Amino acid sequence: MYRLDMNCDLGESFGAYKLGNDEQILDVVTSCNIACGFHAGDAATMRKTVAMALEKGVAIGAHPGLQDLVGFGRRNMDISPQEAHDIVVYQIGALYGFVRAQGGKMQHVKAHGALYNMAAVNAGLAEAIAEAVYKVDPELILFGLSGSELIRAGQKIGLRTASEVFADRTYQENGTLTPRRRPDAMIEDTDKAVAQVIRMVKEGKVRSQQGVDVAIQADTVCIHGDGPHALEFARHIRQALTDAGITVQAVGRSA
Amino acid sequence: MYRLDMNCDLGESFGAYKLGNDEQILDVVTSCNIACGFHAGDAATMRKTVAMALEKGVAIGAHPGLQDLVGFGRRNMDISPQEAHDIVVYQIGALYGFVRAQGGKMQHVKAHGALYNMAAVNAGLAEAIAEAVYKVDPELILFGLSGSELIRAGQKIGLRTASEVFADRTYQENGTLTPRRRPDAMIEDTDKAVAQVIRMVKEGKVRSQQGVDVAIQADTVCIHGDGPHALEFARHIRQALTDAGITVQAVGRSA
Amino acid sequence: MYRLDMNCDLGESFGAYKLGNDEQILDVVTSCNIACGFHAGDAATMRKTVAMALEKGVAIGAHPGLQDLVGFGRRNMDISPQEAHDIVVYQIGALYGFVRAQGGKMQHVKAHGALYNMAAVNAGLAEAIAEAVYKVDPELILFGLSGSELIRAGQKIGLRTASEVFADRTYQENGTLTPRRRPDAMIEDTDKAVAQVIRMVKEGKVRSQQGVDVAIQADTVCIHGDGPHALEFARHIRQALTDAGITVQAVGRSA
Amino acid sequence: MYRLDMNCDLGESFGAYKLGNDEQILDVVTSCNIACGFHAGDAATMRKTVAMALEKGVAIGAHPGLQDLVGFGRRNMDISPQEAHDIVVYQIGALYGFVRAQGGKMQHVKAHGALYNMAAVNAGLAEAIAEAVYKVDPELILFGLSGSELIRAGQKIGLRTASEVFADRTYQENGTLTPRRRPDAMIEDTDKAVAQVIRMVKEGKVRSQQGVDVAIQADTVCIHGDGPHALEFARHIRQALTDAGITVQAVGRSA
Repeated sequence: MYRLDMNCDLGESFGAYKLGNDEQILDVVTSCNIACGFHAGDAATMRKTVAMALEKGVAIGAHPGLQDLVGFGRRNMDISPQEAHDIVVYQIGALYGFVRAQGGKMQHVKAHGALYNMAAVNAGLAEAIAEAVYKVDPELILFGLSGSELIRAGQKIGLRTASEVFADRTYQENGTLTPRRRPDAMIEDTDKAVAQVIRMVKEGKVRSQQGVDVAIQADTVCIHGDGPHALEFARHIRQALTDAGITVQAVGRSA
Repeated sequence: MYRLDMNCDLGESFGAYKLGNDEQILDVVTSCNIACGFHAGDAATMRKTVAMALEKGVAIGAHPGLQDLVGFGRRNMDISPQEAHDIVVYQIGALYGFVRAQGGKMQHVKAHGALYNMAAVNAGLAEAIAEAVYKVDPELILFGLSGSELIRAGQKIGLRTASEVFADRTYQENGTLTPRRRPDAMIEDTDKAVAQVIRMVKEGKVRSQQGVDVAIQADTVCIHGDGPHALEFARHIRQALTDAGITVQAVGRSA
Repeated sequence: MYRLDMNCDLGESFGAYKLGNDEQILDVVTSCNIACGFHAGDAATMRKTVAMALEKGVAIGAHPGLQDLVGFGRRNMDISPQEAHDIVVYQIGALYGFVRAQGGKMQHVKAHGALYNMAAVNAGLAEAIAEAVYKVDPELILFGLSGSELIRAGQKIGLRTASEVFADRTYQENGTLTPRRRPDAMIEDTDKAVAQVIRMVKEGKVRSQQGVDVAIQADTVCIHGDGPHALEFARHIRQALTDAGITVQAVGRSA
Repeated sequence: MYRLDMNCDLGESFGAYKLGNDEQILDVVTSCNIACGFHAGDAATMRKTVAMALEKGVAIGAHPGLQDLVGFGRRNMDISPQEAHDIVVYQIGALYGFVRAQGGKMQHVKAHGALYNMAAVNAGLAEAIAEAVYKVDPELILFGLSGSELIRAGQKIGLRTASEVFADRTYQENGTLTPRRRPDAMIEDTDKAVAQVIRMVKEGKVRSQQGVDVAIQADTVCIHGDGPHALEFARHIRQALTDAGITVQAVGRSA
């Protein structure tokens, strides 16, 4: 049986600032990554987002980021592995408070933005994050870019991992994403995007920009929650996955 | 048997800024209240402080405060009960992350500064805080000013509470602390301070500034961790309590 | 000749978070109050907002607020007059950097949210703010609620002041605004709102909720920049003022 | 005539957190770099530090840093030149507010920590910072590491610059500082440190770790304000410079 999780970043509002269509996207995805107050999110937003996710039966994950609110956690920072460990423990804990207060369960942890990207290629940061997750709760599932150092670090320490793939990004022959600054980084054609994901799930392969197939593990696909067509695309890809015989469900429920 | 807990605020350093003599005061007190990053403390400080407390066998509590780092959480803010609830859940959770990551257990929650003072007299805030603590973990002990709304709210929701008293502060005939701005607010004489605490524990009474005795519950005494003579005074009062036949131990161990 | 300034809060975006229709509202108002990074706004937003205001010929003011980003500066805080002074100097200075870097001139200062409201009734805070403004630049015009302590403090220290009135709020017989929590606080009827402002300008009077006329000084009217009908209402009131023979221009140009 | 400025980072306290011996070091140095609230410092600290510097006749500079309070601005961040420009304009402006409020004059700008280091080698950041300084006030003097991109960028845009040297750091044959992580990075011997500075001023040369002399411009020497022996060393070097016939005075006064 083929399975795929659909995950989306959520709870990115902050105080008077609203971001995303959280309530609607929760009807489509199976896992959500909730911002924990460092790059986005605040205590009230976290409480409300956890409540919505629990009500809609969407699996909850912590989405820890760099302490850079004005930069939305997207700017690389030269932090040490110890600092990465500490901010991840802090943020998982903070979200855990809301999950526990509402009688829920946390499924996973997915690092945000620059922290995610740095940990994909930096083994020291990856191991520090994996250790943070493991020590807070060894049952948590670690999300990371498919083929990344983060996935390796999670497996090494004994965490269950979920390899993340992208529908709307192209890949290189070494299995990495084509950098965003390159003109061929994005897949604009919806049908191509959907077909890429279906093939990754069913065949474990993706056609690289160099024209050769690359092996890829696809446990969860990243869904964008904002933007004009985000919701529409999310619904479309979910339907297409189902039509292709792929069960769309949270990774924590597919064991 | 007479018992008293000695608690102290800890982990108030922040980044390059160091505050307090945490390591030394941990040799004297039986419970510590660890700052959670809103009014003081950061992720690294929380990790280190939890490690020290566990090593020295001192019971750990969360010390949530207002989101006012530059004011050290000491300035009253007009927050709603819902906002109080949310920032308390967040901060307990954040510290919980570090406690769990190190295999420890959290004993209690004590609100900090302005949040503590506002919740002492505002039933709405007190109930919101008590509910936050209860929902995250009903086994947590709620610390609050003896005779305050916070203690009442904790008891009402079914939490175990610890009534806090002060050695170096004078009391009014209605059982409240003499406001700090008044010249007779502080007890400078060490012997008087010690005698006041011993009487509160053994007789459940304190002599008010109006000259009449007031009933008071003393489960834990607040110890200051900084200042030139703080450590010396802490050691002195601990010895005096022991000499008076009072067992000095964490409230969570006296059940 | 009758004159009125129309002012609007601007530059309230923060990082990835967008707020308001700044560009469009700048075509309607004559003065803008630019957030300075404490309750809203960031360095990039300040630069861009100053550029837009200069391009459109709208007079620029600093809009200092409490250091409470998550609360948008709307929650009263128990700050001292000295603290009020310091955060106002800091924020005026920060905006001044962008104004000077772009070869512009700062016209005024209007405190934001809770700081504005507290300074309206607290003489100590009002005088501290007026002093801060005066010391940074005695040519600056101090905006404040008509009849408030802030206007009195500004006049006392020798600042030029601009008394602010509201189109969509009702007044009490003592000249204060009807508190927002009361059902009759807002004027929903656009024609009534416009008529109230025109009468304040031409007759220096407003009909209070108690049915009696109250004297009121109207130098500038507060225009909201967000909300579904804000822009439409702003255009409507500007046209109605002009039709009534009132010159709509920045206070700094009406000397 | 030989001249040298002695500069020191100041005003690095934050809220309840105290750092440095600001008052005493002001008796020794001729220029001070005052933190502006992003990596250290707060509004009250800035006001007090400006007051002390004015009272002691020490030239005042802005010390803008990265928006990273918990990291004290010491962690490199991947910011764009535009972002560097904006945070520098903001921070110069903020300090300018306090300087103007107290009737003083700002002499210079020195970037802090990671911003200083990144701008030393990154021409894009260096030019953005130089432009920010120039646009706010073309009379300001730009401080930067001797031989760095920042000095080049300042000269290019038409700013007066001050090349900074270090007494306690060794140099490489290409004129850069020996990286701190290397064992031979620091000069522990006070006499050697003093001799190195005197030679840099008088001969415009420094002996590199490779044993060859390197040309170096020395307009100002960096003095540390904290640490156990900082004050003593500062006094010692000032005396030694004077004894060597070097006039110790602020760069802005040596024109």
